[in-house]
Amino acid sequence: MSPKITTELLKQLRQVMKNPKYVQEPVQAYIVPSGDAHQSEYIAPCDCRRAFISGFDGSAGTAIVTEQHAAMWTDGRYFLQAAHQMDNNWTLMKMGLKDTPTQEDWLVSVLPEGSKVGVDPFIIPADQWKRMSKALRSAGHDLVPVKENLIDTIWSDCPQRPCKPLITLDLSYTGVSWRDKIVALRSKMAERKVMWFVVTALDEVAWLFNLRGSDVEYNPVFFAYAVIGMNTIRLFIDGDRMMDPPVREHLQLDSTLEPEFKIQVMPYGSILSELQAVGAGLSPKDKVWLSDKASYALTEAIPKAYRYLTPYTPICIAKAVKNAAETEGMRRAHIKDAVALCELFNWLEKEVPKGTVTEIIAADKAEEFRSQQKDFVELSFATISSTGPNGAIIHYKPVPETNRTLSVNEIYLLDSGAQYKDGTTDVTRTMHFGTPSAYEKECFTYVLKGHIAVSAAIFPNGTKGHLLDSFARSALWDCGLDYLHGTGHGVGSFLNVHEGPCGISYKTFADEPLEAGMIVSDEPGYYEDGSFGIRIENVVLVIPAETKYNFKNRGSLTFEPLTLVPIQTKMIDVNLLTEKERNWVNEYHQKCREVVGAELERQGRHEALRWLLRETEPLARVQ
Amino acid sequence: MSPKITTELLKQLRQVMKNPKYVQEPVQAYIVPSGDAHQSEYIAPCDCRRAFISGFDGSAGTAIVTEQHAAMWTDGRYFLQAAHQMDNNWTLMKMGLKDTPTQEDWLVSVLPEGSKVGVDPFIIPADQWKRMSKALRSAGHDLVPVKENLIDTIWSDCPQRPCKPLITLDLSYTGVSWRDKIVALRSKMAERKVMWFVVTALDEVAWLFNLRGSDVEYNPVFFAYAVIGMNTIRLFIDGDRMMDPPVREHLQLDSTLEPEFKIQVMPYGSILSELQAVGAGLSPKDKVWLSDKASYALTEAIPKAYRYLTPYTPICIAKAVKNAAETEGMRRAHIKDAVALCELFNWLEKEVPKGTVTEIIAADKAEEFRSQQKDFVELSFATISSTGPNGAIIHYKPVPETNRTLSVNEIYLLDSGAQYKDGTTDVTRTMHFGTPSAYEKECFTYVLKGHIAVSAAIFPNGTKGHLLDSFARSALWDCGLDYLHGTGHGVGSFLNVHEGPCGISYKTFADEPLEAGMIVSDEPGYYEDGSFGIRIENVVLVIPAETKYNFKNRGSLTFEPLTLVPIQTKMIDVNLLTEKERNWVNEYHQKCREVVGAELERQGRHEALRWLLRETEPLARVQ
Repeated sequence: MSPKITTELLKQLRQVMKNPKYVQEPVQAYIVPSGDAHQSEYIAPCDCRRAFISGFDGSAGTAIVTEQHAAMWTDGRYFLQAAHQMDNNWTLMKMGLKDTPTQEDWLVSVLPEGSKVGVDPFIIPADQWKRMSKALRSAGHDLVPVKENLIDTIWSDCPQRPCKPLITLDLSYTGVSWRDKIVALRSKMAERKVMWFVVTALDEVAWLFNLRGSDVEYNPVFFAYAVIGMNTIRLFIDGDRMMDPPVREHLQLDSTLEPEFKIQVMPYGSILSELQAVGAGLSPKDKVWLSDKASYALTEAIPKAYRYLTPYTPICIAKAVKNAAETEGMRRAHIKDAVALCELFNWLEKEVPKGTVTEIIAADKAEEFRSQQKDFVELSFATISSTGPNGAIIHYKPVPETNRTLSVNEIYLLDSGAQYKDGTTDVTRTMHFGTPSAYEKECFTYVLKGHIAVSAAIFPNGTKGHLLDSFARSALWDCGLDYLHGTGHGVGSFLNVHEGPCGISYKTFADEPLEAGMIVSDEPGYYEDGSFGIRIENVVLVIPAETKYNFKNRGSLTFEPLTLVPIQTKMIDVNLLTEKERNWVNEYHQKCREVVGAELERQGRHEALRWLLRETEPLARVQ
Repeated sequence: MSPKITTELLKQLRQVMKNPKYVQEPVQAYIVPSGDAHQSEYIAPCDCRRAFISGFDGSAGTAIVTEQHAAMWTDGRYFLQAAHQMDNNWTLMKMGLKDTPTQEDWLVSVLPEGSKVGVDPFIIPADQWKRMSKALRSAGHDLVPVKENLIDTIWSDCPQRPCKPLITLDLSYTGVSWRDKIVALRSKMAERKVMWFVVTALDEVAWLFNLRGSDVEYNPVFFAYAVIGMNTIRLFIDGDRMMDPPVREHLQLDSTLEPEFKIQVMPYGSILSELQAVGAGLSPKDKVWLSDKASYALTEAIPKAYRYLTPYTPICIAKAVKNAAETEGMRRAHIKDAVALCELFNWLEKEVPKGTVTEIIAADKAEEFRSQQKDFVELSFATISSTGPNGAIIHYKPVPETNRTLSVNEIYLLDSGAQYKDGTTDVTRTMHFGTPSAYEKECFTYVLKGHIAVSAAIFPNGTKGHLLDSFARSALWDCGLDYLHGTGHGVGSFLNVHEGPCGISYKTFADEPLEAGMIVSDEPGYYEDGSFGIRIENVVLVIPAETKYNFKNRGSLTFEPLTLVPIQTKMIDVNLLTEKERNWVNEYHQKCREVVGAELERQGRHEALRWLLRETEPLARVQ
């Protein structure tokens, strides 16, 4: 990996920072955040502006360029990568280290008095603008919105914004029509006495209209905004995809409809002016509902007194609770996914000893088996296929420079998933194709105990996911071990593999309580730098639990694993399991046998079926 | 309990709300918060202004009086009590219920346009002022500080502010001299580039100067403020207690000292003017450190740009980590406390069957036994002595109207503690003096399992207490049970029985990480309305844990019980315990035997010793 040479680019950027064609007044610093205008986790190539200007293409980082300096803030996952990818025009600001200044403090320390700091108001979330603007103002500087994105002005070969065809999802997949979703949304709006709702997150637009796209890799979304009024629906979207007859029919664009369900299609780029018009026409008691993560530009379009901002939108919360059709779809998707993985692991077991399987080959093979399954669309994230020491790099993705050959002497960790038209999967299995050491088995078993502790936990209705995080760590903690990531994230239904508002983490973000129908991952791990990584991940569905008593009539919840892929028993030290844990493993494997076994049989995959039957033999009682 | 008749008082209050002698302009509403000027949890009689004006004397509640209305906000613990104690001039605002308006919303709904809402700026914390002021301003009203407390102007028989003698604590109790505490504080101030530190919490003043008082019941504190500069120490305190020779000597008031350790004693009431003088004399880069809970009056004395506010002060954090002398003192105090409780339970076992022991008699007897112990000062909180259904009232305190007789048919719950000169105790035991039912034993055993799960937990250095809360609930949750309070609170060393900045709770307040030397309570419970209450509480010390491995060299922590009082084995269903749990109980009881047994022996308390030996027989293995 050689660094990107940015001398010329930085020179150009510093010129446009003073060019009256783009800025009202020269800006002494320009901020280039990571995200797109929708605060997406995964972004399209045309939005990779920070990577373009710096060379650093990790998923998180903020660049700031002043007349003299260029600095990049990123976190511990990316220190090495950023140092490799950036030339020495750049200073790496290692977030999380004690001596690293915040962006605000650094700006204050390097800027001449009374400076202007520019940023694209469409890219910066409103809450972040507020914080930064306040800090700069108190030091005598100004944060100013620069309407034209300055990176775009110098990015001559910037890829076009994707505008790919849409997929329509019928009721058998979504369970609820877009009309009924609009009705439910309007009733939430009425409850809060809100007249308008602005949909800014891409997965929320996709969910609301029962449409999917492929504008962003791994995430079946498309570039669009929506503004929902009590009597109007406006969809801001580009391209001729709205000319597609199935889409027109799905959205009933050519039907005679009650006016409150008539969708007005408008250009993607007109969102700001339309929202400003909404803002200008508000009556004294009107409110406009936005996510507090919406861009500064859109938030500012609504005068302050009329804004109603929440961390989670009603769409985000409704989307998280899957209905029967979605749950059934997720179940089907996970069975197909398990079939693919049984094929893969059976294949690996035969091929690994030959010494010809690399991490990249294994990842490709996993994709090949998945793509043979019905309604497969694409992967749900870049496959983490890692063996030996690479397994300890939590966000590893094999590239030719790091590509390692699987062997019978090293642990193999595969974290992968797919988008099927009926659901999204995300599963991690850790395997050994030779004989694991006692220590490897010990660590694996602690991770398994943590996985089971969460999966089998029973907890009252209304419990937030972060209260379950320590269950996953307890067995590791007892021996002085731990892992430095959260335990679980929300999973979309043929949507983003990471979604809010629930999760299981020691970080107490403002997660919403778990509810029956929510779907999260359960993925504790253990990583030993330079040697191996272990993670056991299932996607699990929150379901009601039967309990002996029912305190205050609150009801209880527990989890049902949707992922049905064998957990390698060879890696388990049975002596370390309680009877309850052993029973959990045996019952889980019994279910894998029955459900996935039947599907393997149906698909005529007999060799993989034999592998499944062997891998799901019950654990024997110790002594 | 008959309600207090407040018609005349409210009339008087409404008059002074318009009286130019007290208010610059008439106020249309007046807020009477619960607290004192130090945001104390326990307050002196002279500070019980809300109880005076309304009759409601629970520990939490805010009264607001307008020209037409009088309303009281309190939480679920006090709905019944407030309804009983207040006459029908008052509207009870039940906090936590969906339809209850916030104070701000209610004010906006009842006030005429452009109203002024008054409050004593010394009583309201700055953060609360900010929130309320903003809400009122956005509705066109003003929150205004009323310097003279309007309740005090009509409270003709208001008790005097207590001004009791001080106790000096020497190094054998405190481990660190007040001079060294000042040095440590100044080094924290230098780290943050702060020139002044304002000590507003009463326990922080007491801790800093190694002094104790008795101005507030149960809390060995005294009314005072302190302002620490890099070269000055100012102590704001009233009365002739500074004339007391031991105090003068302790503080070296008459010695020739380096000027930076010379304590300037000033009148309690001069804090505001002195702080204003500090505020007026600040240089551009100076900062003044205050708790964000300090009163609005004191916070406002420092111009905004110079304030450095934190949720926890460096004193609060230093105070929480007990040194060797404090830890040893706490150990001694808990042994003496255990002696008193062995005597009590032995006595109860003989007396309860006679039917002559009431909750009040039992509480008095507990105090009597405690007062026989060396260095006993007072109780550390009002004893919760409750039997049968009273046990289900979590904050119960027996009064003649509710006083119930202990019997062999009901569970008895005793939550009590004391202040000794060497330490503070807080212990809850749940006992049955007859034969408990299988269901009572089952519930008790779940609570015990939760208690052990926290007490025996091993967790990494840097873990926050709230991450341990679910361990205490897991056994209850498995059966659909739970309890509606936190699991633990910080405990002072001969100081307040509740102190920050650590605790164990499902509520994710901003607790600081647990550190070796911190002391918290471990007190899960289960309560069945109308029948019984169960709670098992030990005070535990955070200590380093030995573990098999040591991930990232972080080190691990666990707890050592300081409380050494037998847990009634009659209440345990041994079948529900794991082997590890059974061993924990047996080892705990073995330690009670050895440590408390030796002290009972030394004190010649042979009957109580026999009781202890019987109660600490090892649990037999089942089957």
